[in-house]
Amino acid sequence: MSSSVLQEGILRGDSAGQRRAMAKAITLLESTRADHRAQGDALLTALLPHAGTAFRLGISGVPGVGKSTFIEALGLYLIEKGHRVAVLTVDPSSTVSGGSILGDKTRMEKLSVHERAYIRPSPSSGTLGGVAEKTREAMLVCEAAGYDIVIVETVGVGQSETAVSGMTDMFVLMQLPNAGDDLQAIKKGVMELADLVVINKADLDPDAATRARAQITSSLRLLGLQGHPEHVHHNEAIWHPQVIQLSALQGRGVDAFWVEVLRFQRLQTENGRLAARRQQQARAWMWERIDAGLKQRFRAHPAVRAALEDTTQQVLAGTLPASTAARQLLAIYESDAVRAEPVKAPEQPPLRPSTGSGHPEI
Amino acid sequence: MSSSVLQEGILRGDSAGQRRAMAKAITLLESTRADHRAQGDALLTALLPHAGTAFRLGISGVPGVGKSTFIEALGLYLIEKGHRVAVLTVDPSSTVSGGSILGDKTRMEKLSVHERAYIRPSPSSGTLGGVAEKTREAMLVCEAAGYDIVIVETVGVGQSETAVSGMTDMFVLMQLPNAGDDLQAIKKGVMELADLVVINKADLDPDAATRARAQITSSLRLLGLQGHPEHVHHNEAIWHPQVIQLSALQGRGVDAFWVEVLRFQRLQTENGRLAARRQQQARAWMWERIDAGLKQRFRAHPAVRAALEDTTQQVLAGTLPASTAARQLLAIYESDAVRAEPVKAPEQPPLRPSTGSGHPEI
Repeated sequence: MSSSVLQEGILRGDSAGQRRAMAKAITLLESTRADHRAQGDALLTALLPHAGTAFRLGISGVPGVGKSTFIEALGLYLIEKGHRVAVLTVDPSSTVSGGSILGDKTRMEKLSVHERAYIRPSPSSGTLGGVAEKTREAMLVCEAAGYDIVIVETVGVGQSETAVSGMTDMFVLMQLPNAGDDLQAIKKGVMELADLVVINKADLDPDAATRARAQITSSLRLLGLQGHPEHVHHNEAIWHPQVIQLSALQGRGVDAFWVEVLRFQRLQTENGRLAARRQQQARAWMWERIDAGLKQRFRAHPAVRAALEDTTQQVLAGTLPASTAARQLLAIYESDAVRAEPVKAPEQPPLRPSTGSGHPEI
Repeated sequence: MSSSVLQEGILRGDSAGQRRAMAKAITLLESTRADHRAQGDALLTALLPHAGTAFRLGISGVPGVGKSTFIEALGLYLIEKGHRVAVLTVDPSSTVSGGSILGDKTRMEKLSVHERAYIRPSPSSGTLGGVAEKTREAMLVCEAAGYDIVIVETVGVGQSETAVSGMTDMFVLMQLPNAGDDLQAIKKGVMELADLVVINKADLDPDAATRARAQITSSLRLLGLQGHPEHVHHNEAIWHPQVIQLSALQGRGVDAFWVEVLRFQRLQTENGRLAARRQQQARAWMWERIDAGLKQRFRAHPAVRAALEDTTQQVLAGTLPASTAARQLLAIYESDAVRAEPVKAPEQPPLRPSTGSGHPEI
């Protein structure tokens, strides 16, 4: 199927045809074969003018916090209000373990069969940067297909929260209500990403949930999440991260959650930060991919590969200064008058046939 | 002066000769001229076996928090105990503004004239990465010269705290005692770097200092600064970041501060984390410099330079997907069969003559 046929199917297909085209497009984008990549880039560029109008919501939390239950409840609530909801996941652990987020239809029983919802699991190979790139691209496909709420969920593995925060308009951190001395530790650097903290299962221990809320609110204030003072104009209305309680299982608090999201969206639109955040994300994304590409080429360079292990060992042993080592390796890379062989794409199976079971949507 | 003469002066010079050799060595290392760089690398490699035995202490805090007063008091206290103390600064703002840390002898009147102290201001040109590299290298020179306590101070500009935390054994964050609702915001991502938080000027408002201490302690706990649980062995003694109060101006609390530092040092030595941190820092430093070098080469490539601005604008305008843009630019970089001209070093004045006043030590 050519990229223009996929484009047509995504933009104007009937319900079933659109789903097929979306699944095939995302599979195409996940391929690392050079010809697929070229088709994928052409498709993405064609879809881009039709994307970008959705609201992008990132949701993170440790396993057991109730993400699936919450996203199912939220998704059905939003569909009820007339939205179309896409759910994507960033799960770098899926490469090794098969994934701590299943991302399949068994988790969100009602949402997954709803015709106004589209659920797609995390790509199951690649580095976090690679996985995040595929999810970003899948997001654009969903938006072009008219899904106006895109939820990107992640579990706290490595830097995945940073990746998801870097591709969404709003980042939500889900927490359990065990407060006080027993307070759960939040992973380094994650709290500062949160635009909204949700304490789920608040009904299990209302007192603990209330203490946790006070504690987290105070820490958010201490952490200076109002942004860098020098960038804040005097009369600009600024979002202050909020903490709310809910019980996804009992369906309580989903409406209050959505009120906060809409308040955030309105404020960030009015003060220009939503647009600024997207521009900053796009620029950072471009450079992140350039850096990854440069480093991949560097590591694949035969002379560098030959020297890298030994040089690294000298640095770790303290017999070679790190900056000297870097200069030596760069000199090896640079001095090689004949360019290294172009980096080969990693081994990649051919695109799954339409009857494949890997992605049931196809 | 050749690098072997400098090496000799640093390792075996008399007091005045050693200071001259150190100053010249650091100036040599700050030079970007290729021949200086080669000499500098040879010198560093020769000095490295003599470095590494000092304790490296990073100290950060906003202007006005009292860093200079504290470092002067601490430095004199340590000299009293028989140590030799070097004070270096990382101040990327010095490039544009002349520096928010003066780093000169007027700030620490007694310490700066003491023969057992060596104070060196931040290099005043380059990116943060470049400035940090020079400071790391200056640190090795000081250590090889027998300074057994190296203090690296920084003011909260950009990512400078991360850079200083990445080159020291222990990172101390200084705070003022205004707590409660009026609590000062701590810059994003900085709190999580702190091994120790010092509330200075605690005598000004003891109640506020006590409240601030409780608040920060609780936030440190919430932020999960015990490290990643999966890396923690059951019986391993782990450092939990502490919060202490002192008054540097009145000389109160400096001894208690040093008790904490020694406790940290002993614990981190026993559980192996000090060595692990240094290895991780060396590896990260090497890759940071490689990445910076690769990106510099990429940006300097004529065809990339010609395309970059327009491509970036398309990404920001939302007409070109960021990952497609990255692939296009990498293809331009890669396809150019003839390698780009080697990157020219930035314009650099010749090494300052020994009589120069820029670095009074020379």
